[in-house]
Amino acid sequence: MAGNTIGQLFRVTTFGESHGLALGCIIDGCPPGLALTEADMQHDLDRRRPGTSKYTTQRREPDEVKILSGVFEGQTTGTSIGLLIENTDQRSKDYSNIKDKFRPGHADYTYHQKYGVRDYRGGGRSSARETAMRVAAGAVAKKYLKQVHGIEVRAYLSQMGDVTIDKVDWDQIEQNAFFCPDADKVEAFDELIRKLKKEGDSIGAKLTVVASNVPVGLGEPVFDRLDADIAHSLMSINAVKGVEIGDGFDVVEQRGSEHRDAMTPEGFKTNHAGGILGGISSGQDVVAHIALKPTSSITVPGETINRQGESTEVITKGRHDPCVGIRAVPIAEAMLAITLMDHLLRHRGQNADVVTETPKI
Amino acid sequence: MAGNTIGQLFRVTTFGESHGLALGCIIDGCPPGLALTEADMQHDLDRRRPGTSKYTTQRREPDEVKILSGVFEGQTTGTSIGLLIENTDQRSKDYSNIKDKFRPGHADYTYHQKYGVRDYRGGGRSSARETAMRVAAGAVAKKYLKQVHGIEVRAYLSQMGDVTIDKVDWDQIEQNAFFCPDADKVEAFDELIRKLKKEGDSIGAKLTVVASNVPVGLGEPVFDRLDADIAHSLMSINAVKGVEIGDGFDVVEQRGSEHRDAMTPEGFKTNHAGGILGGISSGQDVVAHIALKPTSSITVPGETINRQGESTEVITKGRHDPCVGIRAVPIAEAMLAITLMDHLLRHRGQNADVVTETPKI
Amino acid sequence: MAGNTIGQLFRVTTFGESHGLALGCIIDGCPPGLALTEADMQHDLDRRRPGTSKYTTQRREPDEVKILSGVFEGQTTGTSIGLLIENTDQRSKDYSNIKDKFRPGHADYTYHQKYGVRDYRGGGRSSARETAMRVAAGAVAKKYLKQVHGIEVRAYLSQMGDVTIDKVDWDQIEQNAFFCPDADKVEAFDELIRKLKKEGDSIGAKLTVVASNVPVGLGEPVFDRLDADIAHSLMSINAVKGVEIGDGFDVVEQRGSEHRDAMTPEGFKTNHAGGILGGISSGQDVVAHIALKPTSSITVPGETINRQGESTEVITKGRHDPCVGIRAVPIAEAMLAITLMDHLLRHRGQNADVVTETPKI
Amino acid sequence: MAGNTIGQLFRVTTFGESHGLALGCIIDGCPPGLALTEADMQHDLDRRRPGTSKYTTQRREPDEVKILSGVFEGQTTGTSIGLLIENTDQRSKDYSNIKDKFRPGHADYTYHQKYGVRDYRGGGRSSARETAMRVAAGAVAKKYLKQVHGIEVRAYLSQMGDVTIDKVDWDQIEQNAFFCPDADKVEAFDELIRKLKKEGDSIGAKLTVVASNVPVGLGEPVFDRLDADIAHSLMSINAVKGVEIGDGFDVVEQRGSEHRDAMTPEGFKTNHAGGILGGISSGQDVVAHIALKPTSSITVPGETINRQGESTEVITKGRHDPCVGIRAVPIAEAMLAITLMDHLLRHRGQNADVVTETPKI
Repeated sequence: MAGNTIGQLFRVTTFGESHGLALGCIIDGCPPGLALTEADMQHDLDRRRPGTSKYTTQRREPDEVKILSGVFEGQTTGTSIGLLIENTDQRSKDYSNIKDKFRPGHADYTYHQKYGVRDYRGGGRSSARETAMRVAAGAVAKKYLKQVHGIEVRAYLSQMGDVTIDKVDWDQIEQNAFFCPDADKVEAFDELIRKLKKEGDSIGAKLTVVASNVPVGLGEPVFDRLDADIAHSLMSINAVKGVEIGDGFDVVEQRGSEHRDAMTPEGFKTNHAGGILGGISSGQDVVAHIALKPTSSITVPGETINRQGESTEVITKGRHDPCVGIRAVPIAEAMLAITLMDHLLRHRGQNADVVTETPKI
Repeated sequence: MAGNTIGQLFRVTTFGESHGLALGCIIDGCPPGLALTEADMQHDLDRRRPGTSKYTTQRREPDEVKILSGVFEGQTTGTSIGLLIENTDQRSKDYSNIKDKFRPGHADYTYHQKYGVRDYRGGGRSSARETAMRVAAGAVAKKYLKQVHGIEVRAYLSQMGDVTIDKVDWDQIEQNAFFCPDADKVEAFDELIRKLKKEGDSIGAKLTVVASNVPVGLGEPVFDRLDADIAHSLMSINAVKGVEIGDGFDVVEQRGSEHRDAMTPEGFKTNHAGGILGGISSGQDVVAHIALKPTSSITVPGETINRQGESTEVITKGRHDPCVGIRAVPIAEAMLAITLMDHLLRHRGQNADVVTETPKI
Repeated sequence: MAGNTIGQLFRVTTFGESHGLALGCIIDGCPPGLALTEADMQHDLDRRRPGTSKYTTQRREPDEVKILSGVFEGQTTGTSIGLLIENTDQRSKDYSNIKDKFRPGHADYTYHQKYGVRDYRGGGRSSARETAMRVAAGAVAKKYLKQVHGIEVRAYLSQMGDVTIDKVDWDQIEQNAFFCPDADKVEAFDELIRKLKKEGDSIGAKLTVVASNVPVGLGEPVFDRLDADIAHSLMSINAVKGVEIGDGFDVVEQRGSEHRDAMTPEGFKTNHAGGILGGISSGQDVVAHIALKPTSSITVPGETINRQGESTEVITKGRHDPCVGIRAVPIAEAMLAITLMDHLLRHRGQNADVVTETPKI
Repeated sequence: MAGNTIGQLFRVTTFGESHGLALGCIIDGCPPGLALTEADMQHDLDRRRPGTSKYTTQRREPDEVKILSGVFEGQTTGTSIGLLIENTDQRSKDYSNIKDKFRPGHADYTYHQKYGVRDYRGGGRSSARETAMRVAAGAVAKKYLKQVHGIEVRAYLSQMGDVTIDKVDWDQIEQNAFFCPDADKVEAFDELIRKLKKEGDSIGAKLTVVASNVPVGLGEPVFDRLDADIAHSLMSINAVKGVEIGDGFDVVEQRGSEHRDAMTPEGFKTNHAGGILGGISSGQDVVAHIALKPTSSITVPGETINRQGESTEVITKGRHDPCVGIRAVPIAEAMLAITLMDHLLRHRGQNADVVTETPKI
């Protein structure tokens, strides 16, 4: 059934296959009066784009987004915004290799069984290529959040394989090809990637996404809690296998006296909660972590079956990242921004009358 | 805005505060013809119920559920099912302690700021008491899944504090008060709980939820992927701070050649993916893990502020679990069952025509 | 699939059969801070209630509504509001007459074919008894609209059979049992009803619903236009077969020069549009008309079939209105109020930033 | 808030302004395996297209639709279908006339007040130009309904001004420019249109939409009744001011003994209900009527105000239909088809298990 939409009031619907004619997106519910041009989206699209560094795939898509509606004289009009990216680099390739085989670790088998038919070219709809549109829509949300509310959404690579970062220097993130906030670890990441390329293998990654300056009050308990909706939106990114809010799985070993964040007139003393209490933002930074699996598109041969159900082997050649986690940084930002944007509008709808006399901390 | 509903075709909407008159739920979209009585729900409600063992809170709610509609002559009719549990144990208590103070680690502050008004009695709507209705609704989903499709949804405690289990014996789970599948660890859990009670402190926990016999094909990419919707539904449970599918955060250190599950004519050789590929169930067991934070309802004094924004201290007396994770076992089962049920119906709607000639493995 | 919910931000979900244990409703998304007691709903419930006059059915239900959640110390808290009405007058009746026969003009046949099972007692879920909950939920919407925005939603009977009203005197509506705004027509209505009762037959009716003081701007083009959503909500009332906005079907014979409402600095000169332009409220009165069919619950024998598909005859005895349109007046008000309330919150969510310098007329 | 989507399982989302770069649409939830090409949509687009006859506007848009995704090797894949129509006839026109004035009877004023900004070129998003995408999406639904279930959805002009048809000959509908099923009335329609053109005025119309071969069981009471959803989808068409199901407003004067459709082993004897009982399709033809207002785009000067709220006058020059009802025939078909398609999938989701032994009539 229809599953290509995310959000309730800020609603993003996408289409497009890896090797089809184009990718597209409709943003419905963007408030009117926001200054918006293609350039606002292009920056993040470029950050996500393959082929931008030697660490990511060499597929070259300009990923040029076009605004087709919803903007008039440079401003959003409150009507639905149509976005389009044409696929210019659809190499006419020989797909006989994967047409009748199901690549292990890929969606080939499940798409085939679910739909009875599948666009096998480059993974079709299951390809991470569709995330370009998430990034474009996310850029709109990011701009609104920043401009109207001062909310900033940023992400970084916090671990790849067994290499972890030791510090977070926000100024470093855009200074290297890994979105790594710890300059001292860039070389280790570099080395790991080079090793994997040589071996034709891949590796997983952990990202951290942070939204700062989030107002208190976002989130709609009990099911559309902010954390639940963030978990949904981040887990919907290709290759993500885990989502944490705040301390995440570390809480398993924590005591209550240690985990709860003390409150003072000057604010919270710690942020174990990741900025969300009872499913509602607390005014602290919203912090989430995600785990991305190593891509299965590798040249190490894999055991699998064909459409007849017979045993066979497959190698995935082509232009593939050894670590898909790197390029997921702008995607994670986009998804968190879309979810925050949606909750901001939802909160406004129901709670416009609310006046509290309690000081916000 | 409206956030008390989960699901699209199998839709569960709940109401009720901890110390209000009653909890209630409407299940909309349950297929007709399912044999259903209160007893089908009571079993899981009893498993979740506080006061059933010395390890959980001593609040005594019979939690007796009543079916008010949607069932005729013992069968569901396809119309909306109304469920009700009266709150019989609303001790008239002195709430002056928490009326004007925000307990750290609780939703007191965020509810107050969001809504301007809050039912402070026992946490009101933010109390885990509302999960009783999730369990009741989940029991309906579990029954349908089991009876019509042979799908079984079960959960267990896999870690509390630093005590982890070493093996999973499904027969052990209901034999102890911890839903622990490893008989050899029951004593260690018991000891930990006793220690915490003495100290007035609490501890986090990790649960594992497994659905077996799931058909291939459930999940609606790209946003309503099965894993994304599971992340949403599990993260919506009170106190959950992390969700993993399959290997979860372990994938960060895995290689692609190691993570991808090889396919053979006899089936998958491993299940690193947790039964979901490309957001669609693969036919393997669906496996998820969740991390539950230590409850903040402890007798260790906590630093906080009052409604005037002034510094103060708070102690949470009352009947509270040292580890809320234990009672969350039936809740986690319920939420996974609700999500699978929803996706089963969604899949049926769009894909009723699909015929594949590929053998399912 | 799940169809027992209406609204997006102000969301109403109902359950309950005619002769089940109870009717219930969850209102999700009501803004916090609204003073609310059962009495606020009871007035409209009493207006809808059967047995209140000699013109309506003699079934005697006190229809006493209970608030189970979402209200604390007399104020809504922003959490979901649970409402319950127990069915106290479930006469243990002999249903053998309609158990195996499909009453013509009723939902018996379609429910049976759709679900394979049906609660035949008094029509089960298809009975207009469920509208009691619409009225209760509508009363909450009406109170908020009135109190916070000064919006008033009222309805009246404008035609029954061939008897039409000639004038609208709002003060008359509650002065007679027909919700008739034209005192001179009360006797004609009375005579018609008495005649029908004698003949065991029924008659159709036309109602007019008006919302005054509606702000300009409500409605979300292009599909969730205000008129489209009003059409949905009014057509969802039992027995409604037609919905008009403003001049409705009269527009077929109108000229453009005649239909368009001229605008002046003092406001619109006419209201052919019924207060909606381009799917958005214009600030004028929102005016709708609905046609209600004559009930099929009559004692004139009807030709039909039984479950075996064989020809037979059926008479519907019992306590039935000769004109269901009369009691539909508070129901129509409720549905319009629910839809306006929903759109008010939706509009607020997206357009909170909008500032126009154009004077509202 | 987001209102540019219709449907739940078969979900259509659109974008595009009258004089923007392009119109677009995403169809989400179309079952896989349906043979689909642009030609399947082009036929209905051509029927809707302005400039096809001397009776409709002379704006010349080729309205050529392109499928951008969701179709592979000529078959739908179950993924979202992206459609695009470029606006090729965006005359660079002088809009100073309507830029600062609100045309009476148009959405100019309400869009301006709601959003604070509007694309005034040709009405922007409020223009009926957006219905091209409804027609394209509707064509997909029509094809599926016809091919898989034998359901046919057709419409015709039943009245324009005071000229009504006397008979329905389906074969005549495509033989004239009015979609008129009564050959004897074509001349009278022609005469009326010529007269209006001369006068620079416009006229309303009434259309009838019929779906035949609809299976029993579609519709989800109590709110998502089939009739309620049809009312929503038909009322969402520009200029529609009234919707009737079956006998519609005629029921006001009918008796119950006359209205209810007798059932026999051979089927229903009449169809006053319009094929829907209790909100569920009965297996008879689904019949709806709609009233379309006379367009306000006329050359007769109209009294209005400007953005400063001052009195002024306006004339709408340009290429406009004297009767927008004519071109609405394929639009009405499209909307009914989309709603039926959605309900077909919804019904399948919940009721796949249902087996009744009662013969369908």
